[in-house]
Amino acid sequence: MQGTPETTSTAAYTPTDRTVPTRSPERASYDRDAVHAILDEGYVCHLGFVRDGAPVVLPTLYARVGERLYVHGSTGSRPLRMTGRQDGPGLPVCVTVTHVDALVLARSAFHHSINYRSVVVHGVAHDVTDPEEKRLALDALVDHVVAGRSRDSRPADKKELAATAVIRLDLDEVSAKSRTGGVSDEPEDLALPHWAGVVPLSKGYGTPVPDAALAPGTDLPGYLTAR
Amino acid sequence: MQGTPETTSTAAYTPTDRTVPTRSPERASYDRDAVHAILDEGYVCHLGFVRDGAPVVLPTLYARVGERLYVHGSTGSRPLRMTGRQDGPGLPVCVTVTHVDALVLARSAFHHSINYRSVVVHGVAHDVTDPEEKRLALDALVDHVVAGRSRDSRPADKKELAATAVIRLDLDEVSAKSRTGGVSDEPEDLALPHWAGVVPLSKGYGTPVPDAALAPGTDLPGYLTAR
Repeated sequence: MQGTPETTSTAAYTPTDRTVPTRSPERASYDRDAVHAILDEGYVCHLGFVRDGAPVVLPTLYARVGERLYVHGSTGSRPLRMTGRQDGPGLPVCVTVTHVDALVLARSAFHHSINYRSVVVHGVAHDVTDPEEKRLALDALVDHVVAGRSRDSRPADKKELAATAVIRLDLDEVSAKSRTGGVSDEPEDLALPHWAGVVPLSKGYGTPVPDAALAPGTDLPGYLTAR
Repeated sequence: MQGTPETTSTAAYTPTDRTVPTRSPERASYDRDAVHAILDEGYVCHLGFVRDGAPVVLPTLYARVGERLYVHGSTGSRPLRMTGRQDGPGLPVCVTVTHVDALVLARSAFHHSINYRSVVVHGVAHDVTDPEEKRLALDALVDHVVAGRSRDSRPADKKELAATAVIRLDLDEVSAKSRTGGVSDEPEDLALPHWAGVVPLSKGYGTPVPDAALAPGTDLPGYLTAR
């Protein structure tokens, strides 16, 4: 995409003081493909910023375009007004995306855990003001919800683009973290009579509910039945 | 629970400046039962705190006990070391729990949305140092993953309790926010040939995978098949 930094020459993000975890560092990854896959699978991110010295964490829609993350908001929302107010420096943010994949039930209470994959992005967010970049970002946000959907909907008009606020965050200081695999009980607990194992969490589409006023002959699109 | 503030005399949390949203205030709720239900359904929360002036958002396990939230960590993790360092004042945090319930596909790109339920808790977290409270919190964390599970596992011993760090946050400055319902397209878009409607996201347990070293005769417990 126009203006996207060409940082794909290396296969991994460079670890920094705040992307190296203090615990379980073996669960961390800086691999770009791994990070992209986790980001692309999520529906909402958790956007953290500082307001009056205190942390604020809000769920919001987002999309990845190359090495940029676009985070959606309204022009009236607090974080977006804050990026606007701080026109030059932007707004320091932390964006986190997490998938819970399975429950890990151990024989001991202590070793209960979950299998998960998460990505944490640190950086400074800036308002997207260029209309063309905003249009592409809005398409990306729609396609992030359902791949290919932006081509099957009416594009935003000028008024809608003006009413949409999008902030941009470069993928630069980024790490992924995950837990996979089975139970890690103590050897002396193995004979205990408690069931232990992994319970995967299933995810998928339920039955789509069409809008009551669909235009006659509008069929359910293939991209909703494929998953 | 011992020491839990008796704040259940009112049915709702008192809105504050930071729990009243600047946009879509009609989607906000302060009802205790609604907040509790959203919190109790989640597996991970997103814990936000400020480190060196910048926001940090980390996914972690949590559990609610009455009007208290317990957030799990290791004694080596950053936020927990920070609460320890700030022994008196505690650590200002924001804890957010979000459920994505459905994708909302509109005829217009602009009106695409998701149906969700979220809770945002602002407050100051404190280390749990009392061994009895810590034990109850650890039980609650296990039961939050699977209800009733703490009774069907070996309780934590002294060493494990010492290795577990838990922080506590009172439910006081709290709000829920949700979007439900169908598509909100513009009247002039209704005749467009694009499918529009709501796609629910299904959630549930997949097939449990028992640990290879289960004690002979250990059956899958009923609480894993009931859902």
